[in-house]
Amino acid sequence: MVFEHPKIKELLDYTRVLWALHHAQSVMSWDSETYMPREGVRDRSLAMAELAALYQKLLLRDEVVKPVEELLDNEDLNDYERGVVRVLHRSIRIMKALPPKLVMEIAKTTEEARPYWKEARDKNKFELFEPYLDKIIKLVIEAADYIGYEEHRYDALLDRYEEGLTKARVEEMFNYIEPRIRRVLDRVLSEGRYPQNHELEEVKYEVEAMERVNKTILEKLGYPFERGRLDVSAHPFTIGIGLDDVRITTRYEGKDFKRTLYSTIHEFGHALYDLQIDKRLRMTPVAHGVSLGIHESQSRFWENVIGRSMAFVEAIYPILRDNLDFINGYGIDELYYYFNTVKPSLIRVEADEVTYNLHILLRFKLEVKMMEGEYKARDVAEVWNDEIERLLGVRPKTYSEGVLQDIHWSMGSIGYFPTYTIGNLVAAQIYSHIKRDLKDFTELVSGLRFEPVREYLREKIHKWGATYPPEELLRRSFGEPMNPKYFIEYLESKYLG
Amino acid sequence: MVFEHPKIKELLDYTRVLWALHHAQSVMSWDSETYMPREGVRDRSLAMAELAALYQKLLLRDEVVKPVEELLDNEDLNDYERGVVRVLHRSIRIMKALPPKLVMEIAKTTEEARPYWKEARDKNKFELFEPYLDKIIKLVIEAADYIGYEEHRYDALLDRYEEGLTKARVEEMFNYIEPRIRRVLDRVLSEGRYPQNHELEEVKYEVEAMERVNKTILEKLGYPFERGRLDVSAHPFTIGIGLDDVRITTRYEGKDFKRTLYSTIHEFGHALYDLQIDKRLRMTPVAHGVSLGIHESQSRFWENVIGRSMAFVEAIYPILRDNLDFINGYGIDELYYYFNTVKPSLIRVEADEVTYNLHILLRFKLEVKMMEGEYKARDVAEVWNDEIERLLGVRPKTYSEGVLQDIHWSMGSIGYFPTYTIGNLVAAQIYSHIKRDLKDFTELVSGLRFEPVREYLREKIHKWGATYPPEELLRRSFGEPMNPKYFIEYLESKYLG
Repeated sequence: MVFEHPKIKELLDYTRVLWALHHAQSVMSWDSETYMPREGVRDRSLAMAELAALYQKLLLRDEVVKPVEELLDNEDLNDYERGVVRVLHRSIRIMKALPPKLVMEIAKTTEEARPYWKEARDKNKFELFEPYLDKIIKLVIEAADYIGYEEHRYDALLDRYEEGLTKARVEEMFNYIEPRIRRVLDRVLSEGRYPQNHELEEVKYEVEAMERVNKTILEKLGYPFERGRLDVSAHPFTIGIGLDDVRITTRYEGKDFKRTLYSTIHEFGHALYDLQIDKRLRMTPVAHGVSLGIHESQSRFWENVIGRSMAFVEAIYPILRDNLDFINGYGIDELYYYFNTVKPSLIRVEADEVTYNLHILLRFKLEVKMMEGEYKARDVAEVWNDEIERLLGVRPKTYSEGVLQDIHWSMGSIGYFPTYTIGNLVAAQIYSHIKRDLKDFTELVSGLRFEPVREYLREKIHKWGATYPPEELLRRSFGEPMNPKYFIEYLESKYLG
Repeated sequence: MVFEHPKIKELLDYTRVLWALHHAQSVMSWDSETYMPREGVRDRSLAMAELAALYQKLLLRDEVVKPVEELLDNEDLNDYERGVVRVLHRSIRIMKALPPKLVMEIAKTTEEARPYWKEARDKNKFELFEPYLDKIIKLVIEAADYIGYEEHRYDALLDRYEEGLTKARVEEMFNYIEPRIRRVLDRVLSEGRYPQNHELEEVKYEVEAMERVNKTILEKLGYPFERGRLDVSAHPFTIGIGLDDVRITTRYEGKDFKRTLYSTIHEFGHALYDLQIDKRLRMTPVAHGVSLGIHESQSRFWENVIGRSMAFVEAIYPILRDNLDFINGYGIDELYYYFNTVKPSLIRVEADEVTYNLHILLRFKLEVKMMEGEYKARDVAEVWNDEIERLLGVRPKTYSEGVLQDIHWSMGSIGYFPTYTIGNLVAAQIYSHIKRDLKDFTELVSGLRFEPVREYLREKIHKWGATYPPEELLRRSFGEPMNPKYFIEYLESKYLG
């Protein structure tokens, strides 16, 4: 047994209902994005708000809060038990800080906002979403102030998604990578080996055939369909409903098949994390990924490091050719370059490995300003265009290509974006280690023999759940904290090598 | 406003979280039966059990129980408010009686039992389900004893599904209808106008084509797809997740298309009830159908009274012909008799209008014995065969055709079956009234112009939700309580007329 201390066992008896509520909330979220009938949204948002408030109330019961405080510096606890206390203490600290009315208002507002965001994006009508974004900025500022921070209001938000992260640390990270990314980008653009566009981007596919491809590749990667599903949603996501029920979604635009292919591989990376958490942690507060950044490192590792490598492209070529007629006109090399176009562009989720983090830098800067109270929704929409032009030399013609492209702010998720860059950096860091530790890494990828890779990730990252904080997990597994140099090395070796 | 009394308003503030929890439980149930990956069942059953216990705890808070007790005989309340108090008082009485541990054990056991019931049925292996059924009988007896009763333990269970129903009343009902049904059945079988079988029962259909038929007919009936869905599950059901999210399921066996057609129309009847509840009752304890019997009367009204009438068969004939090639070989008359075969058979859900209630009589008798502690699971399985042979002259060769055919007992739903017969009786009763009140009823059906029919049902039944107890609702809307004579009149007129 990993949980032996009697006080921890008692505590876990009280937190089990929180797990059950979270399970329910996850099913409801999944349903909202996949199968819920349109008019169901009103009841759903009201129910979500009620359950969010109930969750807070149940978390803040004396039966939970008191033992957590008592156990905080207890030397008798093992690592798992310490993890439980740490995770609960973080939630309690935040939840205690937030008035239930505010929690409920945020839940209700964001549930209501989402369909308006969708409509605004689809119709390029920012004004439909604008009042919601204004309200969300206001509510999130309020929340950050209740949570508290040492240096900057934004720190309160960053820490929620990435334990210990601060604005200063994110700035330091971007200060290191921004100029180096620009140098790589300039050279890639001037050399022209990696093209900016590819004619396959305009080629249409049949959704059914593409679904077959996605499912086949998921099987090759090791996605267990008896413990998950692949569905369709407007914005692809992974949701861990239980340790044996981790679902992913994708979307089919009908052309440019690499989009749905790589979004599926991306979500597989997320799903594998949840699927490989130690079963003994089931129903406890540590039975989930430790942070969004570490989670994203897993999705990026599969999507980019493995998925966009030449070895992988070679390996999946027969699957593509057997299901998509048009592939016959293209060789492996051409597919590799189609999968690896590098182009300063407007849409984050379509951005390549080289430019991606510059999209995050834009959002990071805007979020800091929002949280400083300097920007309202309207300003964000306008400044967006100037800033992306400065960073990448391209300017949106519509709001849909600009401020409306991401779902995050409609969900109140401000402070979330920097975790994407952390994911990219950590994925590269893991790559540098796995290459050393699994000597035949490239051969494994070539043979689509991923079991040793899955096992490596299970041992180093997945099985621990949230037992250790992110940087400690990295130190324990790889002997060092997050280091952005590996990402730059990865880019330089792949794109300039 | 329907809820004006300040104490009721305050009470409803406290019960809203119960509504939200029930909303969550509904989504989870729907998901369990439709899209949940196989291995998700363990976490799901644990979460369901936790939430069932939480529901009980929240219902039994002083903030709910005290005002309900105080308001019980309050003369100042309007009918809706009295309904809220009555419904809550019933739940509280039952929940208070049941120890939380027992509630949780029932929830957990039945969640676990369901997949075993399915497997047992599919493989004809009663022994897979037997230990679960034994445990369920034991737990339900325990529950009935905690709830309490005046005359018979079974009364405690009947009342849960059909407010006020007793074993004595059910017996009285069957004493009236059993001999009369037998008389009708004997004459139908000897006259041979309604055949026992039809060759269309062996004709295969394409699932996609049949799905189109079902959806088209649902649209004609007035099912609003923006407020619902049609999915596939092993056992068709309707679930009201919210007043604007009422989903139905069907199943496609691949042949004998009337099965999926009429199961779909049946579920439409259930769904329409929930969809037409007064929106002002949203999120309150009366925002659902008043009882299972009244609910079933709605599904049976659409499935049998309307759906199996000659006027309806004529009206949907073009839809069937346009989508199912093989229909071209059959005329309207032949379809009418295919839809209305009368045959003593083994499977309840395939039973015709004449024999159906005899299947219920069997289950009623077995449940009484189970609750008297006289039958264990093994006895039920064996006695089943003798008893159905006595009633209908046919004997199951496998457990799958006998005791394993229904999902109900695996869900702990003992006392539920008699509500099906109540549904049949009340459907016929409504028919006798609607014919008088809507003079052009048959023409409306012929023209698939159902708006006046939906409006009639809305005014008489649906809009009230659970405001009035079942018999009072009938008295108010039709001037009399439930009366089994209408059902016999309906059978005699249709089958002997």
